[in-house]
Amino acid sequence: MPKIVDHSERKLEIAEATWRVVKQKGIKGVSVRNIAQESGLSPGALRHYFPDQEQLLVFVMQVVKDRVSARIQQVYQMELPPVRKVLSILLEMVPTDEERRTEMEVWFEFTFHMKKTNPDAFDSQHDGIYQGMVRLLAYLEREGKMRESLDLDLEAERLYAVLDGLALHMLLDRARLDSRRARQVLEQHLASICR
Amino acid sequence: MPKIVDHSERKLEIAEATWRVVKQKGIKGVSVRNIAQESGLSPGALRHYFPDQEQLLVFVMQVVKDRVSARIQQVYQMELPPVRKVLSILLEMVPTDEERRTEMEVWFEFTFHMKKTNPDAFDSQHDGIYQGMVRLLAYLEREGKMRESLDLDLEAERLYAVLDGLALHMLLDRARLDSRRARQVLEQHLASICR
Repeated sequence: MPKIVDHSERKLEIAEATWRVVKQKGIKGVSVRNIAQESGLSPGALRHYFPDQEQLLVFVMQVVKDRVSARIQQVYQMELPPVRKVLSILLEMVPTDEERRTEMEVWFEFTFHMKKTNPDAFDSQHDGIYQGMVRLLAYLEREGKMRESLDLDLEAERLYAVLDGLALHMLLDRARLDSRRARQVLEQHLASICR
Repeated sequence: MPKIVDHSERKLEIAEATWRVVKQKGIKGVSVRNIAQESGLSPGALRHYFPDQEQLLVFVMQVVKDRVSARIQQVYQMELPPVRKVLSILLEMVPTDEERRTEMEVWFEFTFHMKKTNPDAFDSQHDGIYQGMVRLLAYLEREGKMRESLDLDLEAERLYAVLDGLALHMLLDRARLDSRRARQVLEQHLASICR
């Protein structure tokens, strides 16, 4: 099935071109014209893959999700003590450098755009991060690291709030909240729920 | 000085008209034309007070801040046990009803708009909420309610993250995170840092 292979390879090339455009111009630079230029395709050819701006945005968000997931998988497979491993995974989801900062900006723009333009179809758990928090706490529980008498369901919600609150504040005020301080807050949070 | 009194009374009328527009149409409805119509002024007269869209936005944000501050002052003066009082104050800053939901939407739109259009002049602490967290923990400390050996500075950052993380998630997914659940998370968080 050479045609299918070509199709997905072409999409990957477009994904890479799209990411370069996002890094240079921010998400506002994501247009059929800019991405066609960067990927060396004609606007018509690009429209064959992405008929409109909306589908291009969905695709950009997918690129971000794939990048973050790949990094998390990598950390998850490392030989690390459980609490340290969870800390490292959480740090993959906050803007500790320019790359992650761009990802976070895409996440915000995408999420608010989707929520606003089509609130009924909007899937608030599109990024899977809430479910990720549930799984991280289940992992700590299996490893015997969680303190007793904690409500795991509520703790997942609280961890999710700490994580996204930090990410938001790092984006808005990195002079006060730099990577080092964000790490300290996450360490303190994990220490407070773990043995 | 009747002229000054008139001026500030007129601004208050405009503030009220602006808030009605925001409630009906969201922050995207904040235009000189819409607010002139709602307040019964001519667009020219309104421009006398607010020469451009930007100053109108700054004013809308000020209206929101005044509303929230007034409610917090009211709670602060109530006869309540300290931890209960802090919980009630925190609940004034998350979208537990339609009114607070609109305030939160204005906060998000305003903050990201300002950050984007003029990043250098953007004051990330324009809303004073981070300083508010520092003061709430200092109050709990004075009342002898904070657990020992906590780093108050780091705890203010963590509380701020929990609060804004919850506010963000309530805005995006109230089916999962309703007011009752947000309250439980905040109660749990306060219980974990208080005696």
